[in-house]
Amino acid sequence: MSTDRIVVTAPGKIILHGEHAVVYGKAAIAATLDLRCKLTLSKSSDGLVQLDLPDISVHNKWPAQGIKDGLKQLQTAGSTTDPEPASEKTIEEIKKFLGHNIDKSDAPNLAVIAFIYIYNSLFHGNEQYPCISVLMESEIPVGAGLGSSAAFSVSLAASLLEFSGCIQCEKTNGSISGWSSKDRDVINKWAFIGEKVMHGKPSGIDNSVSTYGGALKFQKGKITHIDKMPTLNAILVNTKVPRSTLTLVGVFKERYDKYREIFDPVLESIEAITERSLAVFEKLYDNPKPDDYLTLEELVEYNHRLLALMGVSHPCLEVIVNMANKYNLKTKLTGAGGGGCAFILVPPDTKEESINSLRKDLETECQFKMWSGISIGGGGVARHL
Amino acid sequence: MSTDRIVVTAPGKIILHGEHAVVYGKAAIAATLDLRCKLTLSKSSDGLVQLDLPDISVHNKWPAQGIKDGLKQLQTAGSTTDPEPASEKTIEEIKKFLGHNIDKSDAPNLAVIAFIYIYNSLFHGNEQYPCISVLMESEIPVGAGLGSSAAFSVSLAASLLEFSGCIQCEKTNGSISGWSSKDRDVINKWAFIGEKVMHGKPSGIDNSVSTYGGALKFQKGKITHIDKMPTLNAILVNTKVPRSTLTLVGVFKERYDKYREIFDPVLESIEAITERSLAVFEKLYDNPKPDDYLTLEELVEYNHRLLALMGVSHPCLEVIVNMANKYNLKTKLTGAGGGGCAFILVPPDTKEESINSLRKDLETECQFKMWSGISIGGGGVARHL
Repeated sequence: MSTDRIVVTAPGKIILHGEHAVVYGKAAIAATLDLRCKLTLSKSSDGLVQLDLPDISVHNKWPAQGIKDGLKQLQTAGSTTDPEPASEKTIEEIKKFLGHNIDKSDAPNLAVIAFIYIYNSLFHGNEQYPCISVLMESEIPVGAGLGSSAAFSVSLAASLLEFSGCIQCEKTNGSISGWSSKDRDVINKWAFIGEKVMHGKPSGIDNSVSTYGGALKFQKGKITHIDKMPTLNAILVNTKVPRSTLTLVGVFKERYDKYREIFDPVLESIEAITERSLAVFEKLYDNPKPDDYLTLEELVEYNHRLLALMGVSHPCLEVIVNMANKYNLKTKLTGAGGGGCAFILVPPDTKEESINSLRKDLETECQFKMWSGISIGGGGVARHL
Repeated sequence: MSTDRIVVTAPGKIILHGEHAVVYGKAAIAATLDLRCKLTLSKSSDGLVQLDLPDISVHNKWPAQGIKDGLKQLQTAGSTTDPEPASEKTIEEIKKFLGHNIDKSDAPNLAVIAFIYIYNSLFHGNEQYPCISVLMESEIPVGAGLGSSAAFSVSLAASLLEFSGCIQCEKTNGSISGWSSKDRDVINKWAFIGEKVMHGKPSGIDNSVSTYGGALKFQKGKITHIDKMPTLNAILVNTKVPRSTLTLVGVFKERYDKYREIFDPVLESIEAITERSLAVFEKLYDNPKPDDYLTLEELVEYNHRLLALMGVSHPCLEVIVNMANKYNLKTKLTGAGGGGCAFILVPPDTKEESINSLRKDLETECQFKMWSGISIGGGGVARHL
């Protein structure tokens, strides 16, 4: 396959169950959300390296030779199959090269630094640094807890690795069939390197989901891929209410510290919901039955109620719960809560008119953003061209 | 004190915490609700025994001699201090005497039977049965789970026992100071006899609360009086949605049977709320502090949320929760749920205008019935004249 033009997409992620409880050592489930980050890498001949991330207002270009000259002393990630993260000193040096103030660490700047670090590491040995342009177009809302930065990291890593020849997408009967599991491991490691630049100490969950697809369970730092994950149809709703994960973790911590004897069992109940969901996913994967969808819906309802009890819901989220309830659909906040996003499960027998009517309620009445026909648990990073 | 005219009132009851959980062996707290049943017993000289319970459409009179003649062979309760309940056969015989169909066992008829059994038992040895008229006027809505029948039983037992001379209300400095604890024990036993006629197998909680006042804890059939119970100010709201306790116990049982691992911790959490409330009651009783009221409100909110999770709330109850929330007041359903009543805690700093405004919302908008300024945990049965 040509590497003159590489188009890669990577999905966002959603927490199905266990957010907040995971802070207290309980298991959680993350799954792909089929809003995708699309990255187009094109070989160019203008001597430039160009990075366009319009969603976060990044439009940069540098002479390829300038990067090589400017960063030839820079630490690289080393081994392709076992890359090292950028040290703080390295990040500072890249900032200097970019002419950034050292304290400037907002998302767009960190995304640029991640790009430079990966680009420089992969092509460090080359006599000439390649001229490329990278364009990201993403469907994933930024800062909504849906893994937008991980999807960028994953698609960036995949496209640069593919371009460099370190990994190679397989082709069967003329159509792209994806990367080997070894190649995916490499993508995931590099994506994690990118995430580390952007987030300091990421859990690795977002990039793993986005790389491998499906869903995974994580608990006490251990990530396990869920082998039998059905693809679920859902509606995603963004309340557009900004929230801070840290603040909401604090909201529950205060409640927990005051009423530990009340909330310890609540966390146990949530863990039981997580485990029960995993069991139902397996049943649905092997042999889908309407009753199992009903169970998933009940679990979603229960978990949302427990999260509300923990203090991490928001009046806007309750509006979604109530509006979806009118169509007998079940809703759960996802991620930190306190605003942000909620998902609504859409079982196979749901009528199209219910969804249209719900959209009217949510978008016209409430000014929320709603996406319907979204798969949860679908495929991970993919090359399209 | 004269016994020519005796006026007695007895309070209703409310479940503060632990309804439904109590079915699974967890503790619950019942407290008096200061809506009262007022019973006026007057000696007459018309040869008649008259019973007027207008709330349940009972207006009966019998010649006193007719009762004596008709029921002279009837089983009595025996010992005044340790009365025996009416056997099924005795109840059938009273029905025959009253000219009732044997299968007719609705609330009004059972109330009449309870009266006759207690009256006949207390005056059985007398040469002449006393001519009295008994009038009940009750503030407690019937069939709303607020212990209306127990309040009737308690006030009936207290007035008849007082009239018969079996107990004697004390008088200090010209004002009535109440019954000794021994006398209250006797009232409670006879009230329980009345409850047994009316309910078959009552728990004894309702009559105990109404007799002794304050609050009590009950668990696995054991009833313990709570010694340090503060009097709490509350609003009571009746949704007027009829519900059946049995049905709602069934609703949760179905959920529990399907998701035992999820709801066992929920029941534990409710038990922790009950225990924490008991600890706060003691603190408030000894030394009231605003923070403790806040804690009580939080506990009320949490328990309501858990009950909703258990499936025993109702859209009308959620309307009350949301409306009270607008004034930063916390609500909990009480009793079976699925309609029925909810209470709203009213901490000392609550503004009168909030309560008036809430009344408008609840009564005008929703057609609910609201009582404000209701004490919870106040005194039990009392003689007023």
